[in-house]
Amino acid sequence: MVFALMGQNRIPAKGIAAMNNQGDFEIYDFDRHELGDTDILMEITYASICHSDIHHVKEEWGAEEYPMVPGHEMVGRVTKIGKNVTAFKVGDYAGVGCMINSCGTCKYCKAHMEQYCPKVVMTYHAHDPFHNNEITQGGYSSNMVVSQDFAIKIPKNAEMDKVAPLLCAGITTYSPINYVDVKKGDKVAVAGYGGLGHMAVQYMVARGANVTVFDITEEKRADALAMGAVKFVNVNNAEELKGLDNTMSFVISTIPANYDPNMYLKMLDLDGQFCIVGLPAMANMPVLSIDKFIWKGNRKVFGSQIGGIKETQEMVNYSVKHNIYPEVEKIPATPKAVEEAYENVLDGKVKFRYVIDMSTL
Amino acid sequence: MVFALMGQNRIPAKGIAAMNNQGDFEIYDFDRHELGDTDILMEITYASICHSDIHHVKEEWGAEEYPMVPGHEMVGRVTKIGKNVTAFKVGDYAGVGCMINSCGTCKYCKAHMEQYCPKVVMTYHAHDPFHNNEITQGGYSSNMVVSQDFAIKIPKNAEMDKVAPLLCAGITTYSPINYVDVKKGDKVAVAGYGGLGHMAVQYMVARGANVTVFDITEEKRADALAMGAVKFVNVNNAEELKGLDNTMSFVISTIPANYDPNMYLKMLDLDGQFCIVGLPAMANMPVLSIDKFIWKGNRKVFGSQIGGIKETQEMVNYSVKHNIYPEVEKIPATPKAVEEAYENVLDGKVKFRYVIDMSTL
Repeated sequence: MVFALMGQNRIPAKGIAAMNNQGDFEIYDFDRHELGDTDILMEITYASICHSDIHHVKEEWGAEEYPMVPGHEMVGRVTKIGKNVTAFKVGDYAGVGCMINSCGTCKYCKAHMEQYCPKVVMTYHAHDPFHNNEITQGGYSSNMVVSQDFAIKIPKNAEMDKVAPLLCAGITTYSPINYVDVKKGDKVAVAGYGGLGHMAVQYMVARGANVTVFDITEEKRADALAMGAVKFVNVNNAEELKGLDNTMSFVISTIPANYDPNMYLKMLDLDGQFCIVGLPAMANMPVLSIDKFIWKGNRKVFGSQIGGIKETQEMVNYSVKHNIYPEVEKIPATPKAVEEAYENVLDGKVKFRYVIDMSTL
Repeated sequence: MVFALMGQNRIPAKGIAAMNNQGDFEIYDFDRHELGDTDILMEITYASICHSDIHHVKEEWGAEEYPMVPGHEMVGRVTKIGKNVTAFKVGDYAGVGCMINSCGTCKYCKAHMEQYCPKVVMTYHAHDPFHNNEITQGGYSSNMVVSQDFAIKIPKNAEMDKVAPLLCAGITTYSPINYVDVKKGDKVAVAGYGGLGHMAVQYMVARGANVTVFDITEEKRADALAMGAVKFVNVNNAEELKGLDNTMSFVISTIPANYDPNMYLKMLDLDGQFCIVGLPAMANMPVLSIDKFIWKGNRKVFGSQIGGIKETQEMVNYSVKHNIYPEVEKIPATPKAVEEAYENVLDGKVKFRYVIDMSTL
């Protein structure tokens, strides 16, 4: 009975879905769970394309289910709220990132790091145990139903067409930079100058750090320097790599393809830290040989997964206040435009984030 | 001319040398460089056997030169001092560990971390640029000539037959435990309960930590518990490994053979640290896959190499004061005894450190 009643109030949605692991997209009609008492319904205005969407669509991180509506970077207008919602009003702007729920009671949730909760519900490609285990569908769609606890308030003065990428690319880089507390004058580096990398550069430049950028796309050299980096290193050029060992206090790798992490470990100075946030396909995952850790004693390697909801809100507020936004390229909400965008991301042609204008769906 | 004069004053020594990478030892007569103005000459009383001696003798970390006198854990009596020596008197006890010189001027030397100096001179299997590039020979020998700056003062009340292993096994574990500042009540673990591991257990028990020990040798279970560990886990027993994920604030791995480091990374709790000090043969060096870092975000992995001279002195003083010593098994100074000891180390039969009584040479 309960299921039937719930079914009656399900909310129709339209999305752009991957139909298979070849990356063929189609317009897809589906529905979302009914509006709970503490949920908000938002009409999505912009959703952006993260490299990890491609990993999921192509099953590079494990088996998936189709049709799959990707997208874990989205912003929109609140159009309806549950009766107990206090954090949002109709007409407010909200953002949703990589997760939409968690248990709320474990030590990770209590520490505001819901992303490590064993029951965390990812925004898409997941089953939601809090809603009859329904499959979750992401932001390349007309709307979203989400608990107010997992929606981020977007200040009204934000540049709305550039906000979406903050919800993953922004927090994924902001969080570890905040965690290691990068300071004015620190010698730091960003490996991989794409969607995540160009956010990392901005956050560290804003803190006054001395930022070096590593990438393989020569065309990005001028962008990096214009963004405030003191140096751009083309890692395909051995000459440019000389003299960098033992010089960095912090390196963040956003690289989503195979690469040599040992090279960056070597660049760390005593007590330096190497943070990994970019995740390549499982089939060609780089490895760190443990002897490298000993030769470079007292240098640390760690990973970081997005950031908790509280910190994500802090990051959005900080970004808007400091005018830190991704560089975006808008595309229409059509399957063909998404397919072309994926090709360009893989070819390193995008500078730096594709944002789908969902109003054109 | 200078070379000829130096040659005249070289100091005769007798050692137990590996003659090849098969581990065949022989008595070997050689000489050491003349006593410099700030050098001390010490008569070695005890030298101990570290697993890394075996890696070197067998060329498991790269090409070596023979005859090779191993040994970087030694203690002895000062029998002669250079005219400008102020730190030692004849009759004092001194210890020598893994290194005997460094540049003294680089940032690592200035930070009292001579082990990371680009010009550090290892106690054996190295060429000494400060002495005409002569090959260095270690502690399985009658005497040692060393700068007073790289000799450790051994308190007169120390148990002299147990002091030698402190100079490598002691400092290698003491330094990272000190670096991460293990505290009373911390849940910590030691992976590999051998020469290094049993020192790590003692240092962490002395700090009041809650220590779990991982090993594959069932016969060591009782020793670990007697030494103050709260738990012994036989890693060959899958049942015992259950329930350990996300529980440890610090894990130190002393394992000198192939193993799965990802298993220990998974055991770390948020902000936990995994320190690698054990170094297997290059041919089967374990690797950490970078995706493991992301799944276990905010957990850190680092390596640590022995410790600087200042900290080594502090460790010896601390160990003697707190009565922390290795468990030792004495063997005579004969090639046959050394060969047998190596076999037993490889078979996991030693509890926990062989000490060669050099007075029997």
